[in-house]
Parts: sequence; C-alpha cells; structure tokens
Amino acid sequence: MIIVVVKNSLSSTYNNKQMIYKNRGMDLENMLNNANKYYLDIDKAIIYKKPTPIGVVKVSYQDNHKIINRGYFKEQSTLDYNGLYKGKYIDFEAKVTHNTTSFPLSNIHKHQIEHIKKVIAHGGICFLIIMINNIVYLLKGEDFIDYINTTKRKSIAYTYIKEKGYEIKYGINPDLDYLKIVDKIYL
Amino acid sequence: MIIVVVKNSLSSTYNNKQMIYKNRGMDLENMLNNANKYYLDIDKAIIYKKPTPIGVVKVSYQDNHKIINRGYFKEQSTLDYNGLYKGKYIDFEAKVTHNTTSFPLSNIHKHQIEHIKKVIAHGGICFLIIMINNIVYLLKGEDFIDYINTTKRKSIAYTYIKEKGYEIKYGINPDLDYLKIVDKIYL
Repeated sequence: MIIVVVKNSLSSTYNNKQMIYKNRGMDLENMLNNANKYYLDIDKAIIYKKPTPIGVVKVSYQDNHKIINRGYFKEQSTLDYNGLYKGKYIDFEAKVTHNTTSFPLSNIHKHQIEHIKKVIAHGGICFLIIMINNIVYLLKGEDFIDYINTTKRKSIAYTYIKEKGYEIKYGINPDLDYLKIVDKIYL
Repeated sequence: MIIVVVKNSLSSTYNNKQMIYKNRGMDLENMLNNANKYYLDIDKAIIYKKPTPIGVVKVSYQDNHKIINRGYFKEQSTLDYNGLYKGKYIDFEAKVTHNTTSFPLSNIHKHQIEHIKKVIAHGGICFLIIMINNIVYLLKGEDFIDYINTTKRKSIAYTYIKEKGYEIKYGINPDLDYLKIVDKIYL
C-alpha cells in the first residue's frame, strides 16, 4: 500500500483534518475489506463481505479435494456486506462509478432494492457506499428509496448524493472509517 | 417433497401437536432454505445462507460472461446463515451428524468458534442447529461455548444436546419453524 499525502503549500488552505490521502492501488472494495478487518481486530464490529455466489456446473476430485471445472458467477439478491455493530444489524452495498455527474441505478438490482426496503422495515441499518469523483459517500437506504420513489430517472444525480450523502473521509487504519459516519447518523 | 404422516393408532399416545412428519428427500439445508424463503415471503425475517466462498484460479470469457474454468471451495470463517429478525442480528450454523451418541466438534472450525464468541459479545443471537438421530435441535451459542470451555472432549455428548438444546419439531410450511424456538428462548 502506497500512501501519498498531498499537502497544499498555501497554509491558508492547508488543513490537517482535510489532508487528502490517495490510496493508490487500492480500490473501494479493498479499502472496505481492510476497514472490516480492522474493526474485527480491535473488536469493534463483525462485518464481512459475502462471497459471490457461484453456480457450479462441473466438478472433479483431486487428492480428495473438490475442484470446480466449470462454474459461473451469479447475482447476489442481498447486498454485499452485512454484520453486527453495537448490537445492531448492519447491511450495505459498495459501488464505484466513473460517471462524474450521476450514479447509474443499473448498479443496484431490483432484488437488492427490495432487500433494502425490507431491512429498513425490520429495523436494520442499511445504506450504500458510493464512490463518485473519487469521493466516498454513505447514502442512507431511506434516502436512496426516497429518490427512487420520487423520480423516474435511471441515475441518481451527483447533487443529490452530495446533498443527502455523508462523506467518508480517507484516513489511515482504517482507510475508510465508515463506522464513524454510522455512529453519527444512526446511533 | 413427500410427506409421510406417521400416526400412532393408540389414541392415548396420539397427539395432534406431536405428529411426526418425515420429510423424505429433504436434507437439513434444504429445510432451512425453505424456512428462510417462507419467512421472507411472509415478511417475518430476512435470513440467508451465505454462498460458499470460492477461490477462482482460472477464468475465461464466453459471450461476455465470465466462466470459471478452475476453482476450489474455501472454508467459511463465519457461520453459514445470518440475517435480521425483529430488529435483531441473527447468526447460525446447521450441521447433520450420523453419529448417534455425540456431535463431533470437528464440524465447527476454530474460526467459527471465535466468531460465535464475538457475535454473542456484540449482542447478536447466535446458535447451532444440529440434526442428530434425525431429531433437530437448536443449541444456544452460549451453551456450546460453555461446553467447549469446560471439557477437553472432541465431541458434544448427545445427552448434553438433549439437555441443553431445544427440539425444533418438523412441520409443514415451514418444514422447520426454528424462529418459534428463537422467540421462546431469546425474545
């Protein structure tokens, strides 16, 4: 992991709290996996990424081990991450978009939208983590559903994400301390 | 699914509530998946089996679809099932043993034991569902950990499971209504 600390030489615009860390070679998924590992290590939360479901077509055996000789990736009907934090059920999805003005709704499947509604209705904490323009936002499931219910658009405008979302600042250990935002808005 | 209702012809021992349903051709995993689907359909709980994690060694592409040409099954470090019920985080593992006198502890890996301890410590509901002698028991994570902490044995005696566990009776729709037991002992 290479961390480049970009400082603005003008002291007026330089702010310690707003130092920008660029985590090169690490994508959103890696940063979240590292955060979850960190939370597990310090016994703060128990959150895992679910394995991608696989359809297994052909197997063979080698030294008593089952080998997959043909398989394919299936769609998850839930969100990718779930777990337990401060006695609460937590469930979220993380997506990166390279669009600069909006987040395409094609990123979230129909089943997943239903899942988000259900989790909220049953008292769980449910949100999206969206990386857009290299900034990472937590968007509450409630605000996501609100948006879908009130518009026929096929994407979420960046302005909406900026307005309703909460920026998760880059840091060190963990790279993305998203539970800080969860504490702030849910607990 | 073939359901055989075994009635005892002696009315003194015949009890409607204790009818025995034998779900032939359905194993424990199928019965639990059906129960979870049923709970989802009636909007009672959101509980899923996690996909088995796969190590992907070789992929190819066919009509824009990613195909796995070589992969292997990995061990889950968590338990197989988790989800949300009545606002609570729920997490469990289901195992069948063909042993008649004990449940071999080799069924539950070291990482999973640590996971069970963590989930309990963080306020989640955590248990094992064990099928032994064709009877299905729910054994609380707390009682499982107690047993491990107080014995050096490599298996849990059937007498302990009968004493501490809660029998989940076979039924129809769902085949195994394990949340009824969860209601009784946790909520």
